[in-house]
Amino acid sequence: MNSMNHGKSIAAQTTVRCARAALTRLMEPADLPGLALIRALGPERALDFIAGKDASHAAVEQQVTAILNEAGTERWTGLAEALGRWRPRLADLAPERDLGTVKRLGGRLLVPEDADWPRGFDGLELQAPIALWCRGSKQSIPAQGKCIAVVGSRDSTSYGANVTAEIAGSLVQRGFTVVSGGAYGIDAQAHRGALGVAMAVPNELPTLAVMAGGVDRFYPSGNEELLRTIAEQALLVAEVPPGTNPTRYRFLQRNRLIAALCSVTVVVEARWRSGALNTAHHCEGLSRVVAAVPGSVYSANSAGCHRLLKEGSAVCVTDAADIAELAGAMGEHLAVEPQVQAALYDGLGTADLLLMDALPLRTATSVEKLCVVAGLSAATVLSGLGRLEALGLAERRGGGWLRRSQGLEGQASMTTPW
Amino acid sequence: MNSMNHGKSIAAQTTVRCARAALTRLMEPADLPGLALIRALGPERALDFIAGKDASHAAVEQQVTAILNEAGTERWTGLAEALGRWRPRLADLAPERDLGTVKRLGGRLLVPEDADWPRGFDGLELQAPIALWCRGSKQSIPAQGKCIAVVGSRDSTSYGANVTAEIAGSLVQRGFTVVSGGAYGIDAQAHRGALGVAMAVPNELPTLAVMAGGVDRFYPSGNEELLRTIAEQALLVAEVPPGTNPTRYRFLQRNRLIAALCSVTVVVEARWRSGALNTAHHCEGLSRVVAAVPGSVYSANSAGCHRLLKEGSAVCVTDAADIAELAGAMGEHLAVEPQVQAALYDGLGTADLLLMDALPLRTATSVEKLCVVAGLSAATVLSGLGRLEALGLAERRGGGWLRRSQGLEGQASMTTPW
Repeated sequence: MNSMNHGKSIAAQTTVRCARAALTRLMEPADLPGLALIRALGPERALDFIAGKDASHAAVEQQVTAILNEAGTERWTGLAEALGRWRPRLADLAPERDLGTVKRLGGRLLVPEDADWPRGFDGLELQAPIALWCRGSKQSIPAQGKCIAVVGSRDSTSYGANVTAEIAGSLVQRGFTVVSGGAYGIDAQAHRGALGVAMAVPNELPTLAVMAGGVDRFYPSGNEELLRTIAEQALLVAEVPPGTNPTRYRFLQRNRLIAALCSVTVVVEARWRSGALNTAHHCEGLSRVVAAVPGSVYSANSAGCHRLLKEGSAVCVTDAADIAELAGAMGEHLAVEPQVQAALYDGLGTADLLLMDALPLRTATSVEKLCVVAGLSAATVLSGLGRLEALGLAERRGGGWLRRSQGLEGQASMTTPW
Repeated sequence: MNSMNHGKSIAAQTTVRCARAALTRLMEPADLPGLALIRALGPERALDFIAGKDASHAAVEQQVTAILNEAGTERWTGLAEALGRWRPRLADLAPERDLGTVKRLGGRLLVPEDADWPRGFDGLELQAPIALWCRGSKQSIPAQGKCIAVVGSRDSTSYGANVTAEIAGSLVQRGFTVVSGGAYGIDAQAHRGALGVAMAVPNELPTLAVMAGGVDRFYPSGNEELLRTIAEQALLVAEVPPGTNPTRYRFLQRNRLIAALCSVTVVVEARWRSGALNTAHHCEGLSRVVAAVPGSVYSANSAGCHRLLKEGSAVCVTDAADIAELAGAMGEHLAVEPQVQAALYDGLGTADLLLMDALPLRTATSVEKLCVVAGLSAATVLSGLGRLEALGLAERRGGGWLRRSQGLEGQASMTTPW
C-alpha cells in the first residue's frame, strides 16, 4: 500500500485520509471482508459502496471473494452479511469531527498512503490496520528494528515490575523504543521504566502505547496519569477512532499491532493463560522474535513465560543486552535487499536466507551465535539448519555450523587429555 | 560388549573381572588408548601386554591406532607413551585385595561381561568405563529410561535446594531413580529429597551417587553422613577402585557416567561457568535430553540454567511432571527395535527415526507434543523436522506437523470472527 503515496495530490490524500477515518469507525479491527473491500475498491470507493452509492454488487463480491480466498479466509459468508454489520454505523459517521478531535489533542491520523506509515504493518498483509490514530508530542514511529515490545501480566509481582523497569530503561538508553499496551502491571511498568530514563535521551521516542480503545480514552482509569504523561512526552496510538471503548476483541487485535510494530516482543511475566501469550502468538505468524524472561518455578506469574520456553516458542532472555542483541542483528539484516539473495538461493524462505547470510564459510559457529547474527529465534535457526543441511547448503562441523564448502574435511573429535 | 557374557565359564568371568579390576587402577577414566587396547586384546591380554608379557608391539600398536582413528581421536602419540603412564602403577596392583575390599563393604565390581551391565554406557562407545565399583544395599542399576540425573551448583540457594528436593522426591514417587554426584548443594539435596520419600517406595532404588573417587572415600567430608546413608539405603558407584582420591579430571569424567546412565539430566541451579554444564555437554554428545530449571534473572545461581536455555541446549522444565513426561516418552521408544525402522528410512539418524514414528498421519501435532511423544529435545525435534521436511517426509500444516501424505491439502488460515 506504500506505493499509493506516489502521484496523489494533497487534496486526494485528504479525501483518502477522511475515507479511512470513516472506515475505522465502520469496521472493527482486522475485519477481513472489510479490508478486502478496501483493497479491491480503494478507501473512497469502499466507503461509497457501503453507503450504497455503488450498485454493482456482484462484481465487487467477486473481487472481495478472490482477495479473501487468496488470504485463506474460511468463514466468508458474503457481502450482504458484511454490509449488515457496517451499515448500522453509517449514522454515527463524522470523520471530519474525529480528525478535528485528534488534531485538537495534538495528534493526527496516519494512513498507509503516508510516507511514514510503519513498514512493520506490511507483515500483517490483509490484516494491516485501516489507519492509525496518533496522539503525542512525538509523532514519528521508529523502524521495526528499533522497537521492542515489552508485555506481560496485569497482576505483576514485584520481581516482574523490577525486571520490566530495568529492561525498559536499559532499552531506551540503547536507543530503542519500548512498545506496550496501556494495561496495569507489566505494560504500565514498561512505560514507566522507559519514561524514567527518557530525559537522558531526549531525541528518541522512548515509549509507544498501543491502545485498544480511542486515544482520548485513558483506560484503565488507574493508568490515566501515566497515559497522559505518555501523550505529553511520547506517543499513544490506536486503530479505532476517538471515543471508542476498548473491548475484549479490540484488546486481542491490539496485540497484533504491538507484535507487527516490533522486531522483538519480550514477555516479562505471564500466567499460564494470559493475553501476553496472545501477543506472542501473533509474533509467530509474523516471523517476529518472541523472548521470555524466566522466573521462579513457584511463581504463577512466570508460568506463561516458562510455557513459551517449554514449547520452544520463545528465546530465553535475562536482560536488555540479550534483547538488544536479538533486535540488533535483526535490524542489520532488515536493511539487506531480499531480492538479491532470492536470486541466489531460489525457493528458500526469508528466515533461511538470513541464516545463509549468517553462516560463516571457514570457522564453524554455534547455534547461539547464529541466532544473534541472523536475528532469528533458536527454534527458527535449528529448523533452518536442518533444511539447509538437507539441501547441502549448510554443514555441521565439530559441534558448530558453517556454509557448505566444496570439499568435506574430517570432523573434529571429542577431546580428552590424550 | 554385552555379547561377551555368553559362552564364558564362571572361572573365565572371574579372571576377566580381576583383570578389569586391575585395569581400573592402571588407567584414568576415559583413557582412550587404554580403552582401545582393551577392545583390541580383551582385558586379560591387555593387562598382560602392559605387564610386558606380550612382545608383539607393532601389531598391537596397529590395532590400537585403527580403533582410535575410527573413534576420531586426534592426539594419539603412540603406545610407548601410553605404556609410560600405565606401567608406573603396576607396582600398586592388587586387584584381589580391591575386590575383597568392595566385597567387605557390601559391594561388588560390575563388568561389561555381566548381564546387568548398564546399557546406557553403550552410548559412550569407546569411552565406556572399564568396570563399575558398586557399594550399597541395592546393587541393581535401573534401565536408562528410569534414571534421571539431578545436578547443579555446590553453592545452591534456598530456592534451588527447595526445587531440587521437591523434584527428586516427586521423581522417586513416580518410580524413577535420582542420579547425582556426591557434592554439596544440589547434588546432596537431590539425594536427600530422594531418600526422604524412599520409605514409601521400598522396592525401587531411590537414588544413585556416582563418585569421582573410590566408593570407600566419602568425599566431601561434610557429606560423609549422607553418603553413608546412600550406601546403606541405596547405591554408590565409581569407575575408579577403592582408595582412589577424587581429582578435578575425575570429577569431569564422572559427569559423563551420570549423563550416560540417565535418559534426562536436569540442571536445577548452575552458575554461568559450572561443572553441571559439563554434565549437560556430555548429554549432547550422547543424544540425552538436558532439562534446565529457570529461576530469577537476578540469581547468579540460575545464570547457567538460563545460558543452557538461551543456547537451546536444554528444555525448560518447572516440575517433576515435565521431567517424567520427557523421560517417559524416551523410555517407551527405547523399547522399539531400531533395525526395523532403519530398513524403512535408510540413511536417517536415530533421532529422525524416532521423530518419523512420532509424526501423525492425519491431524497435525505441535513441536511440544512431538518432543513428548518422540522423547527428543525441542532442539532435536526442530532440526529433525527441518531435515524431514526437506526430504519430503514431513509436512507443516496449520502451525503443526504431520508425516508427509500423498496429496497436498490447503493450509489452515488465520482465524478471525468472520
